[in-house]
Amino acid sequence: MPLINDTAHAFLPYPDAPVPNAPAGPLNGLSFAVKDLFDIAGYPTGGGQPFVLAMSGIKTTTAPTVQKLLDAGARFVGKTVTDELAFSMNGNNAHFGVPINGAAPDRIAGGSSSGSASAVSNNLCDFALGTDTGGSVRAPANHCGLYGIRPTHGRISLAGTLDLAPSYDTCGYFTRDVTIFARVSDVLLGEDSAPLPSKIRLLKPLDIWAMLHADVVAAQSAPLAHVQAVLGSPQNTHIVLDNIDTLFWGFRFIQGREAWQVNGAMIERFCPPLGPGVAERFAWSKTVTDEQHATATAYRERFKKHLADLLGTDGVLVMPTTPDVSPLLGDGGEQLESYRNRSLQMLAISGLSGFPQITLPLGQRNGAPLGLSLLGPAGSDASLIKLAQLIANTP
Amino acid sequence: MPLINDTAHAFLPYPDAPVPNAPAGPLNGLSFAVKDLFDIAGYPTGGGQPFVLAMSGIKTTTAPTVQKLLDAGARFVGKTVTDELAFSMNGNNAHFGVPINGAAPDRIAGGSSSGSASAVSNNLCDFALGTDTGGSVRAPANHCGLYGIRPTHGRISLAGTLDLAPSYDTCGYFTRDVTIFARVSDVLLGEDSAPLPSKIRLLKPLDIWAMLHADVVAAQSAPLAHVQAVLGSPQNTHIVLDNIDTLFWGFRFIQGREAWQVNGAMIERFCPPLGPGVAERFAWSKTVTDEQHATATAYRERFKKHLADLLGTDGVLVMPTTPDVSPLLGDGGEQLESYRNRSLQMLAISGLSGFPQITLPLGQRNGAPLGLSLLGPAGSDASLIKLAQLIANTP
Repeated sequence: MPLINDTAHAFLPYPDAPVPNAPAGPLNGLSFAVKDLFDIAGYPTGGGQPFVLAMSGIKTTTAPTVQKLLDAGARFVGKTVTDELAFSMNGNNAHFGVPINGAAPDRIAGGSSSGSASAVSNNLCDFALGTDTGGSVRAPANHCGLYGIRPTHGRISLAGTLDLAPSYDTCGYFTRDVTIFARVSDVLLGEDSAPLPSKIRLLKPLDIWAMLHADVVAAQSAPLAHVQAVLGSPQNTHIVLDNIDTLFWGFRFIQGREAWQVNGAMIERFCPPLGPGVAERFAWSKTVTDEQHATATAYRERFKKHLADLLGTDGVLVMPTTPDVSPLLGDGGEQLESYRNRSLQMLAISGLSGFPQITLPLGQRNGAPLGLSLLGPAGSDASLIKLAQLIANTP
Repeated sequence: MPLINDTAHAFLPYPDAPVPNAPAGPLNGLSFAVKDLFDIAGYPTGGGQPFVLAMSGIKTTTAPTVQKLLDAGARFVGKTVTDELAFSMNGNNAHFGVPINGAAPDRIAGGSSSGSASAVSNNLCDFALGTDTGGSVRAPANHCGLYGIRPTHGRISLAGTLDLAPSYDTCGYFTRDVTIFARVSDVLLGEDSAPLPSKIRLLKPLDIWAMLHADVVAAQSAPLAHVQAVLGSPQNTHIVLDNIDTLFWGFRFIQGREAWQVNGAMIERFCPPLGPGVAERFAWSKTVTDEQHATATAYRERFKKHLADLLGTDGVLVMPTTPDVSPLLGDGGEQLESYRNRSLQMLAISGLSGFPQITLPLGQRNGAPLGLSLLGPAGSDASLIKLAQLIANTP
């Protein structure tokens, strides 16, 4: 049973095992939860899939990123529900349920780091680890009204963690509070390899903004105005290379290929009943051809260079995190698949490039949270966090 | 991973943990599997439900019935898939898949001891433990062409085992071979408290036989003739008290009430996504009223006395195990629900009375196995096994 009264269905009810933390340190006094993709000694790692849970056994070592938090004095309170094999954004695991969105209980928490976003948004802990492959931290942060980061690819260790698509997988985290966001970032990110200068160049990608419905643009106008008031007026730009379909499929073919490489043998051996959407996605992943993968990889390299050139050392994109607020809990499979595909178009920019993106809970629409993102060059993660603090702390 | 190459999807892929057995003993040389309802030290107990698996942790003690087999020299080879919370007869676990019926691969193995019946019928072990509450050993034994027993209620210990409906739950087992059936029985049953006399009184319950379609009666005619040739011509009788609906609901109301008492708190706390049929069955179980339960309990007492009087100390019913061969794998929810309800009418006789029933793989229909059952008075289990040997060994 989790240590806390989990009314949000955010946690897995694993038997408590002692997870000692340092008695003092920069995260002293903070509690945290961990997506059930990270190994923690004394616990199984289930990945939201019953066969994976069955095969796991009890881990004897703790993932180094979790250990870093414990060593910094943070207190572990439990492992959180993940979408199945982290290959979904719906926050509805066919085997482990639907973690409640603390900011909009009638809407999905999003995924795949659904339980982590749920735990933080329901005040069940101060921060939580997630992973972000195609948006699995950014989208639930958007949906649950939280700060969230997808760091530069490779910057935070994913050792001791279940893979989904390794060339995209990153370790991110959620907080309600910008100060805690910064404290956790200090521990997990350390110093930037490519810090932003004090005067950054804010860029507004018109092609991404054009993907929004007018109602969403309207809902983003006050948050955007606030960011501009703090960081200066943005230059307009365009970032999509070739067209949005090339970008979308560039992301998906590589993700699918890698997801099948990671999970295909298990799926073919055990024929596990996979949840709605997940089953179809893996079936599709199996069909990705060498040629599709090669074309996508070539596009990814071009896109990464293109975006690196555009950002230079001081460029920061200001853009919507997702196309809209979270879907309603009752939405059907087709609506959710359309939501996922539209979201991925926007979320794939950071995914394909490997560049860091943070989402800030600045907006609202229909009473639900709506995030605004900053995306900077590789290695500028901590600088982005500083900008988030500046934005949050400026009246 | 299981020790054996599990092409039947019968086993849970738990990490191997050593489960020592005695080097010699009456079951020396035999391998066995155990339904994932029994605790075995070094393994979790999942009960076919992901939250139950998550809560389980690793057990530190072994259920005494399993230990008895190990002490008798049998070698444990793995834990087998069960229908979710053992509350289904469909052999299709929404989280852990569909164990293959080794005797009729196009048909369900039946449930809830689906993996145990699958393992034995696919020659993956010599025998397997299951549990039988409403037919969960007898039905899969029928479907997979195996010997199977539901013993006298309470005769074989269920300590260290997940409950479904304790006043019905029993521990049974499956074998392909009558000699092994007898060897395992010697260890688990010991001596009868109420052995049958050498000359038994075979009884044919016409009201139960009348529930069969003519095609099934035809398929049972040769097996029945063989049993009569060995045990003598039966007297005709009628066993249903009041009517079949009273019997059916007598069984179901008590089962539902107890199943909710056992699992309701967990279900209400975690809202686990339950598989098709299972969710509806628990929702119904919650609605069983005190009055329904009291009426059913009174019926059960009357029925038990009625059947005890009818059987005396030498009466043995010869009857079909289930109304027909196993449903096809493609059958839909309504067909399966109808199959379950028709089967329960027949299977509830042993359930309500608590009297032992064994099923013998004597028949076939449409190329699939069809069992014939012997049902005797309380405490006559080992005597029934001797009759099974006599029947099997008479040309």
